[in-house]
Amino acid sequence: MNGAESLLGTLVDSGVEVCFTNPGTSEMHFVAALDEVEGIRCVLCLFEGVLSGAAAGYAAMARKPASTLLHLGPGLGNALANIHNAKKGDLPMVNIVGDHATYHLEYDAPLTSDIEGIAGTVSHWVHSSKSPEDIGVDAAEAVLQAGRGQVATLILPADVSWGDNPNGCAPGVSLPAPATVPDSRVDEAVSLLRSGKPCMLMIGGREIDSEQGLMLSRIGKACGARTCTETFPARVARGAGTAVIDRLPYLTEMAVDHVKEIENLILIGAKAPVSFFAYPNLPSAIAPQGCNEFTLATVNEDIDQVLEALLEKLDAVDVEPDVHPLTLPDLPTGDLDVMACGASIAHLLPENAVVVDEGITSSIGCFPLTITAQPHDWLNLTGGAIGWGLPAAVGAALGAPDRKIVCLEGDGSAMYTIQSLWTMARENLNVTIVIFNNRKYSILELEFARTGARGGTPGPKAASTLDVGTPDMDFVALAAGMGVDATRATTAEEFNEQFEAAMQSTGPCLIDAMVPTFLS
Amino acid sequence: MNGAESLLGTLVDSGVEVCFTNPGTSEMHFVAALDEVEGIRCVLCLFEGVLSGAAAGYAAMARKPASTLLHLGPGLGNALANIHNAKKGDLPMVNIVGDHATYHLEYDAPLTSDIEGIAGTVSHWVHSSKSPEDIGVDAAEAVLQAGRGQVATLILPADVSWGDNPNGCAPGVSLPAPATVPDSRVDEAVSLLRSGKPCMLMIGGREIDSEQGLMLSRIGKACGARTCTETFPARVARGAGTAVIDRLPYLTEMAVDHVKEIENLILIGAKAPVSFFAYPNLPSAIAPQGCNEFTLATVNEDIDQVLEALLEKLDAVDVEPDVHPLTLPDLPTGDLDVMACGASIAHLLPENAVVVDEGITSSIGCFPLTITAQPHDWLNLTGGAIGWGLPAAVGAALGAPDRKIVCLEGDGSAMYTIQSLWTMARENLNVTIVIFNNRKYSILELEFARTGARGGTPGPKAASTLDVGTPDMDFVALAAGMGVDATRATTAEEFNEQFEAAMQSTGPCLIDAMVPTFLS
Repeated sequence: MNGAESLLGTLVDSGVEVCFTNPGTSEMHFVAALDEVEGIRCVLCLFEGVLSGAAAGYAAMARKPASTLLHLGPGLGNALANIHNAKKGDLPMVNIVGDHATYHLEYDAPLTSDIEGIAGTVSHWVHSSKSPEDIGVDAAEAVLQAGRGQVATLILPADVSWGDNPNGCAPGVSLPAPATVPDSRVDEAVSLLRSGKPCMLMIGGREIDSEQGLMLSRIGKACGARTCTETFPARVARGAGTAVIDRLPYLTEMAVDHVKEIENLILIGAKAPVSFFAYPNLPSAIAPQGCNEFTLATVNEDIDQVLEALLEKLDAVDVEPDVHPLTLPDLPTGDLDVMACGASIAHLLPENAVVVDEGITSSIGCFPLTITAQPHDWLNLTGGAIGWGLPAAVGAALGAPDRKIVCLEGDGSAMYTIQSLWTMARENLNVTIVIFNNRKYSILELEFARTGARGGTPGPKAASTLDVGTPDMDFVALAAGMGVDATRATTAEEFNEQFEAAMQSTGPCLIDAMVPTFLS
Repeated sequence: MNGAESLLGTLVDSGVEVCFTNPGTSEMHFVAALDEVEGIRCVLCLFEGVLSGAAAGYAAMARKPASTLLHLGPGLGNALANIHNAKKGDLPMVNIVGDHATYHLEYDAPLTSDIEGIAGTVSHWVHSSKSPEDIGVDAAEAVLQAGRGQVATLILPADVSWGDNPNGCAPGVSLPAPATVPDSRVDEAVSLLRSGKPCMLMIGGREIDSEQGLMLSRIGKACGARTCTETFPARVARGAGTAVIDRLPYLTEMAVDHVKEIENLILIGAKAPVSFFAYPNLPSAIAPQGCNEFTLATVNEDIDQVLEALLEKLDAVDVEPDVHPLTLPDLPTGDLDVMACGASIAHLLPENAVVVDEGITSSIGCFPLTITAQPHDWLNLTGGAIGWGLPAAVGAALGAPDRKIVCLEGDGSAMYTIQSLWTMARENLNVTIVIFNNRKYSILELEFARTGARGGTPGPKAASTLDVGTPDMDFVALAAGMGVDATRATTAEEFNEQFEAAMQSTGPCLIDAMVPTFLS
């Protein structure tokens, strides 16, 4: 058994079932091993940013890591933005990065680069295997590290891959359970919640499931605390039957206003909220000065445990949660805009769908309108690096193969990783993409206005850098070029018809929704 | 004047005329400054890998740096592969990477990342500006550093960008001249060349112009030394009237064979040749053991000076160089394959064209057949990171606006940075793209065979990772989706007609050339 085979075998024995690949010469022995080891599904992506985003989306849905296979430093660089997103979302990921043979590095060949240096910027754990005998153990350790909600990057030199490994595979590992929270911390939270001061319970992290939301609602009602989710938790259950919980607003001004009365902010799997960006005359921290930010549970601690303990200690067991009813907006008619798209999607969204949201400003209709739609999961962009949505939809479809994936995409953000469409076609993934084709980087028009430069109106050069409509992009043609069926919607009626048909289909399809920007 | 304006003004005063941009929120003040400062052309790209590749192509043609504008660590990550290529090609590049405001970093916002760490892996020089008063001087230093054939990355915190700079712009700088080579080194080369031992003169680096090639040929003939270029110099003059000089072969076995008799290898702007990848049972160094590798001039030293000195000292001034005649292959007929494409391109290539070659295995016809075509420049992929060709064509067209750019692209490699087409359409660039659509990662089929695994024939999973033809990509549709005119060629006659028409046009167009792989 060579090193590559023992690596793959150890991954499989540790429950890693999918490998998103874009190999090169230094990975050819790993590629050969794919046919020697049973139990791993190999998914080719045409660009590495697709495969790292797919791994992030897979992890969010499957609750375990996929592996990636990347070609040297440049392949890792191409994957970096979506690895960053996974890292910021505390999502598990195992990256395998091929390298030159160990003895070849000193020759500084054209593709030699500082892989450890690149990997270190976006990984919790980086390790370069030293010999074929080590690689099985190294792979098991990578899965363990990933299992802590981390990005683990294992560098696989070509000679480690092709060399003989008499040790064979290492024993498979299980993902670690979340860590127990000490009672003392729960007690401190209880005393804060009973202090009589204004409190907020903020929940976040990898996943906020429906049960957790309901528990949080009951706890909040029992003790009079407000409840809130992070702005962008990686995954959150929403829709009819889920608890009524606010979301911390994205815009700094609104977020600051949202928490301005709070004196105790209790964080459950959430980080202390901060402004996405800095602005002159706005604070970096969202909570008011003097607010006590108390971490009840970190993202890797047992959130069910602390919620159950709070339910008990705050006598909330018999409190009824506030729950969203099933209320569908009417199907829209007439002009198509982002609110009409939102109403249509909310009306037609099937039960148990997964919404992948990279609609940026254009999700402004869909997000509020779906809160009383059929129950669904919503995946957010956790690290702010654009180009995550289409890849995440690839991964979500593989991580939850029985569910309909609805991907909301801006036209600008779609173009970072448009190659995702090809993998959707190849794997016949159950993904419906809505492109909000507004021919602008609308979020940047808003941000430009906030600078106050030129009275908030861009000059001609600045305007040109915010305009993705010269020439207009034709996403129907782009989809066709990669084997995905697509249609264009210019009225609400067309959108309704196309989205309804998409909900009936099981393969990939794309709707190019021609909408004005939300600012207009 | 704010920091961003003094940065831009200093760049312009230092001869930087183009800025390839993909901005985000933290760069909005820089974007606003674009309309306050005269003299810089701002070119929007839809993905950062396009703009870094464009900057590399621009530098190769314009012989000076462009600047890029990148959004935080993920934007830099997206650009990394083509920055790597520029770095390996010793091409000048000034990257401006926006960052959060200095005081915001401690809050670890979602888009906070280790920008210096990422930049350090692909830059010769990295600096983060500390205040608006510094940014002009920092920008001038970045241009100076880039002018040494280096990648300079300047990190621009948002508060440095928006803050007031009473110092205004820094004085513009000029690019440094190449360093003089000491006579002693030239004398040592002369004595090696006169030693009677088998010698080879290997030239490489940023650019091998026609005059340099002719001088090298005369020198070689005068002293009986063989002459050769690196495998992938960034830019080389070729075609009728240029000197007959070998190219070091790409395949390790062939390269080793090419130099196996050589005892003195004299390097002029070239690096000591090494195998692109390591293989079991093949050496990493190309030159035979015991061969004396003598660096006569590094890439940043004065290559004209050493060639002129050698001409004198070796009595080669009156030696006639060996020169390629103008010999055009007949236009091909019948089935379309990579040799037919090569013959057609060689027949029709206009004088002074620039060929950007990322055809990978499919350039096997075009490269040899164009050597007696009309004189042209040929740009090579210097760092081996795929996804350079289309972006480099964008940059080459802006760096040499009076010349026809012909971009040879593999179908697989085209998909890494296909977003380039949109910028070509937007800027109406004089680029003709030939996509060799063979539905395979052909180079990897070859590399798989070289592993010897399974007798050299991939199993079903391995084969699937080398196959980009399920589904087939339709580059005519992809081009249409981004506003570029495109046609499909399935016979030699169709290719001839389409390529001839493309040579008459002045805007971007694409030919989707349906060819078998070179292996078939």
